[in-house]
Amino acid sequence: MIDKHGIAQEFQLIQDEICAGLEALDGHSKFQEDKWDRPGGGGGRSRVITDGDLLQKGGVNFSAVHGDLPDMMVKELKLNSSDFFATGVSIVLHPNNPFVPIIHMNIRYFEMGDGTYWFGGGIDLTPHYIDKGMASQFHKGLKAVCDKYASNLYPDYKKWADDYFFNQHRNETRGVGGIFYDRQKDGLSKQEWFDLACDLGRAFVPLYTEQVDFGRNKPFTEANKKWQHIRRGRYVEFNLVYDRGTKFGLQTAGRIESILMSLPQEAHWYYNHQPEEGSEEFETLQLLKKDVDWVV
Amino acid sequence: MIDKHGIAQEFQLIQDEICAGLEALDGHSKFQEDKWDRPGGGGGRSRVITDGDLLQKGGVNFSAVHGDLPDMMVKELKLNSSDFFATGVSIVLHPNNPFVPIIHMNIRYFEMGDGTYWFGGGIDLTPHYIDKGMASQFHKGLKAVCDKYASNLYPDYKKWADDYFFNQHRNETRGVGGIFYDRQKDGLSKQEWFDLACDLGRAFVPLYTEQVDFGRNKPFTEANKKWQHIRRGRYVEFNLVYDRGTKFGLQTAGRIESILMSLPQEAHWYYNHQPEEGSEEFETLQLLKKDVDWVV
Repeated sequence: MIDKHGIAQEFQLIQDEICAGLEALDGHSKFQEDKWDRPGGGGGRSRVITDGDLLQKGGVNFSAVHGDLPDMMVKELKLNSSDFFATGVSIVLHPNNPFVPIIHMNIRYFEMGDGTYWFGGGIDLTPHYIDKGMASQFHKGLKAVCDKYASNLYPDYKKWADDYFFNQHRNETRGVGGIFYDRQKDGLSKQEWFDLACDLGRAFVPLYTEQVDFGRNKPFTEANKKWQHIRRGRYVEFNLVYDRGTKFGLQTAGRIESILMSLPQEAHWYYNHQPEEGSEEFETLQLLKKDVDWVV
Repeated sequence: MIDKHGIAQEFQLIQDEICAGLEALDGHSKFQEDKWDRPGGGGGRSRVITDGDLLQKGGVNFSAVHGDLPDMMVKELKLNSSDFFATGVSIVLHPNNPFVPIIHMNIRYFEMGDGTYWFGGGIDLTPHYIDKGMASQFHKGLKAVCDKYASNLYPDYKKWADDYFFNQHRNETRGVGGIFYDRQKDGLSKQEWFDLACDLGRAFVPLYTEQVDFGRNKPFTEANKKWQHIRRGRYVEFNLVYDRGTKFGLQTAGRIESILMSLPQEAHWYYNHQPEEGSEEFETLQLLKKDVDWVV
């Protein structure tokens, strides 16, 4: 049966595959790797790509850490012990062209000293400009992966993503969502949960390639770039105010540069910016809602 | 004796004076005002200046709100009732020239239904490049205001600012600090606490003018601008992750554009950016520490 070391090993392989796939897709820049150790135990491999043809800034992070959780976290996560092991792959990509979406992926495995374990993960898409057809294609791809395991997974995890990737203070979703799940161990075998995580990891590059092919050669204006920078500002707001992984990292004194790798190179905030009614920007805002059924 | 309405009225006057002072200092742009109502009671006047000669983006906010606090807040603030009145003036200015510091000021008064009241406030300075002489001049100015009331105020509130304006996850202060205080009602009379708040409000423009005169005509390079954008990124991190006023606003569903007015127009994040040893940027980083005695 698969154990934590096997899982971490496979996750590393997935990181390798994704980086190779993204370098091929970018065609210009290469990932730079930083290996780091966590003082309390374990470490990781942070890989960052910058100034690419496709990607302005992107991070593909692998980590496998272990040790004792701070009391505060034990309480917050309602755990029986503080002895933990956690491994995962985490990605955020910020492209140059405003017609290529920002994308995020995370797969993770968590195990306590007493053998309790769970899986979590998700992929979600944040287009600066929403194209309904492309959002639909993305969701169909995620549904196909989920449906291999159980028919309730896609609808449940799609809803979870809508609720999670949400800027409450703006009453606005981060993007068109995707899937999100956390602390899953029932319903499927451990092997199946693991296979689902790996399938998602391996679906990432093909799914993003579709989005990239659609947008990367579209010409864009200064106004399009400005809007991209505003949308990136909302991305920063979500990650710093709500994102659990970021909060967990800041609270457990993780490697700060790896945690905040998800922030865009450049973001803008204009006071009370309101796109003109009927504009493409306005239409995108109308679609940043929960519970849009993209698979139709 | 001064009552809540009198306080709110004087705070509005201070907002007017500060806006007039800053327009004269800028010399090019004027403040635009948005009046707004809070659904639960009260409202405010948000004033924003953009694309100025001196200021790229700045906000001077007045609000006087009342109503019932959400249960969560009553618990968090350890209050006896939920019926509250709060008024204040809040400022953040982001200048164009990297050699002019970002500045923040806030004066506030809070009163509960049972008559309990307190004052809070503070001014702090965030230079992109720290000049020791200018930091010292700023702290001396604050000390002079505090010393009129009691000799312990400056040292106590200076320490409070060091502890408060601190990016824990970076182990770095936001800037050179200043003073910060909250929930103060003992030691001085109500009139004196009010006078202190007004004195701080009226010291703001002269104190910032000194900083502006020092830096606004200094020539700067692309590298200086890049560093300014990085430092603004840290400002965004502080405001979204730690700032109590921002959190209070987001949780009580305040007017979002007034709350996030404090964010800079443009901020940058570069992965693992490390200034060269001995550079001006490096020297600034060395001074972003708690407990530097600037008044020497």
